[in-house]
Amino acid sequence: MKIVPVTETISIKRSIDSGTEEQRAAVQSILSDVRKNGDAAVLTYTKKFDGADLDQLRVKEDEIAEAYENMDGEIISIIREAIQNIRSFHEKQVRNSWMMTDESGTILGQKMTPLDSAGVYVPGGTAAYPSSVLMNVIPAKTAGVKRIVMATPPNENGKIPSAVLVAANEAGVSEIYKTGGAQAIAALAYGTESIRPVDKIVGPGNIYVALAKREVFGDVDIDMIAGPSEIAVLADATAKANEVAADLLSQAEHDMRACSVLVTESRELAEETSKEVQKQLESLPRKEIAQKAIDDYGVIYLTQSLQESIEVINSIAPEHLEIMTEEPMELLGQIRNAGAIFLGRYSSEPVGDYFAGPNHVLPTNGTARFSSPLNVDDFMKKSSIISYSRKALEENAEKIAAFARLEGLEAHARAVEERFKKE
Amino acid sequence: MKIVPVTETISIKRSIDSGTEEQRAAVQSILSDVRKNGDAAVLTYTKKFDGADLDQLRVKEDEIAEAYENMDGEIISIIREAIQNIRSFHEKQVRNSWMMTDESGTILGQKMTPLDSAGVYVPGGTAAYPSSVLMNVIPAKTAGVKRIVMATPPNENGKIPSAVLVAANEAGVSEIYKTGGAQAIAALAYGTESIRPVDKIVGPGNIYVALAKREVFGDVDIDMIAGPSEIAVLADATAKANEVAADLLSQAEHDMRACSVLVTESRELAEETSKEVQKQLESLPRKEIAQKAIDDYGVIYLTQSLQESIEVINSIAPEHLEIMTEEPMELLGQIRNAGAIFLGRYSSEPVGDYFAGPNHVLPTNGTARFSSPLNVDDFMKKSSIISYSRKALEENAEKIAAFARLEGLEAHARAVEERFKKE
Repeated sequence: MKIVPVTETISIKRSIDSGTEEQRAAVQSILSDVRKNGDAAVLTYTKKFDGADLDQLRVKEDEIAEAYENMDGEIISIIREAIQNIRSFHEKQVRNSWMMTDESGTILGQKMTPLDSAGVYVPGGTAAYPSSVLMNVIPAKTAGVKRIVMATPPNENGKIPSAVLVAANEAGVSEIYKTGGAQAIAALAYGTESIRPVDKIVGPGNIYVALAKREVFGDVDIDMIAGPSEIAVLADATAKANEVAADLLSQAEHDMRACSVLVTESRELAEETSKEVQKQLESLPRKEIAQKAIDDYGVIYLTQSLQESIEVINSIAPEHLEIMTEEPMELLGQIRNAGAIFLGRYSSEPVGDYFAGPNHVLPTNGTARFSSPLNVDDFMKKSSIISYSRKALEENAEKIAAFARLEGLEAHARAVEERFKKE
Repeated sequence: MKIVPVTETISIKRSIDSGTEEQRAAVQSILSDVRKNGDAAVLTYTKKFDGADLDQLRVKEDEIAEAYENMDGEIISIIREAIQNIRSFHEKQVRNSWMMTDESGTILGQKMTPLDSAGVYVPGGTAAYPSSVLMNVIPAKTAGVKRIVMATPPNENGKIPSAVLVAANEAGVSEIYKTGGAQAIAALAYGTESIRPVDKIVGPGNIYVALAKREVFGDVDIDMIAGPSEIAVLADATAKANEVAADLLSQAEHDMRACSVLVTESRELAEETSKEVQKQLESLPRKEIAQKAIDDYGVIYLTQSLQESIEVINSIAPEHLEIMTEEPMELLGQIRNAGAIFLGRYSSEPVGDYFAGPNHVLPTNGTARFSSPLNVDDFMKKSSIISYSRKALEENAEKIAAFARLEGLEAHARAVEERFKKE
């Protein structure tokens, strides 16, 4: 990995794919086709893109039963334990509706209400990602969303990976459909004969899925559009190079565009980590991917001090941040921008990917400056509550009317005055 | 107003302006010009679109002092009282960082951090909207955002309305710039020589502002893109037609595309309200606007029962909902979709526009199905905290590694195992 001394401002290289004109046009045409032709269009695209000739989109009960038979019992119990951990973390996020009252009889408050429905997209491809199912479904379930719909592309035999089906069933998905890509997003947003529309669509996907989500946004809500995975390690001389290297590689193996960064004031750690990365890379099954990511997006920033390292981290606003310093907890208050913060050497990033409980759906590409990990709030909406008593309105009517007239809105002023006119 | 009996599904007419090709192209070109040429571009557009020949964008201290001199003292004290009310409601929304611990030494939690900076756009035009300043600035201020920047177009003499300057100063804006339209959004998102970029842009605006916000989204955060104002009144036979009508008109006067709806099972109320609307319209200064809105988007839905009325309301998901029934509080639990809920006859909608405390920036166009009034959360981000002890990692290492290998991610498994390898 290249070592770069930090001078004034750092500018980190990240990959953003906003799609080509052709891809946008393809997505537009799929969306309008599905809106017009419903299931027929979805089935046609599923044949065309996934090679599967289906006669129904919805996964049947016996397919789920079969998935359980295919799964190792130990893995099922690990999935269940992960669900418990994830649920218990997300349950802590649930907020009560609240109100404030005063002696004039006024009641003001916020009513918290779960969304009626949510759609979770799960990407297909060669690997199965049950953890992605858990991380997207459990916050919705915990928020109280009654109808949670999953869509995922089938393989050419019309099958969904067993681990995905089992994870969905365990996490509490109500309906599962075999459809992927822009056609799945269109079906979730606008509905077809067999899929009722949802209020919000979450979950990662390829560029077609991302473009389709952008297009339907506004008609339904979406989560963020995720970029490639990122890790930044903030370390001092007490960190172990082999551990830092292993964690940098755990992100690099995700994607050739994944971004792994070490920020340290220790030249020795920088140099050793660089060597360790190369050494550990050699024996990785996904070596090619990880090597390319490290070559293109990997960097070690060498700073003058821990304080400067912290500033570099805040300016990167990484998706995952590991703090491997002598007293990691002491630095927490200085970290302003990071999706998830892993403290200390035993908090290796993969701990958060599957198991600990916090969500692994995190803001990428510097958006941790203003956005948050997927959480229960994302599946709830707030409504303001305003209940004025006669007394409260009487006391304030003149002031409200004066404010309205200041803004030139006479009907606003009169609406308040109308209450006291005829009595 | 036309009275429509509810049959099966209702489909409410709303206006959505997504801009023309020409408008999109104009916005694109302004954005790239400002990115490239900074202040010079902003000043040129301000001359071109607002007719103001400025030599500096930032509002000076003495302009603010002058604004105070131009304002009526009583209005200033009403603004201050409104600020108190708005602040006290928003302070209740502030969330603490939290953590959960267990006996193995694990700490999990969420760290709540205010955004570093926020930009508030305030539209120009003939009327001044100090309430919009308050409603956008106070949640940011309450969240703890240190740098709050306001942008608003000047008139052709290079002036900003006094009420807007006073409201901004009272609410705690740190910097005010004389710039509007897409050029203001570009400056806030990307920065110029005199305006440092912000992390999030909020506030209403015309179609150029809306299109520009959509374009910069991702580089910075934005609030929702607001449509025309909407009110739905849910009323039974106990409601007073004159009050219902006055409230319907208070929204209709905003915009020719504003949407005013009454939903009731009382034919008598429906008919009387329709007459009252026409009667009250006659003497309104903004009669022409209100009449057009009522004609084009106004409707009274006549239902069979209160229960059916509630279902109609939930399917409309109105921005503002007034409940004028015998026992409004009893219905609260059944309302799933509404931006702000006004309960009882003394909770006229304008109470919430200026004064009561809840935010008047609300989800329009049915988006109350999944989004919320502007609130303190919109100016904070959450970071997950994960701190595993050696013991906790030891206990769970095998399970985490097994889950990682299930997903084909060997480097993830090894990162965890690396901790225990050399000791």
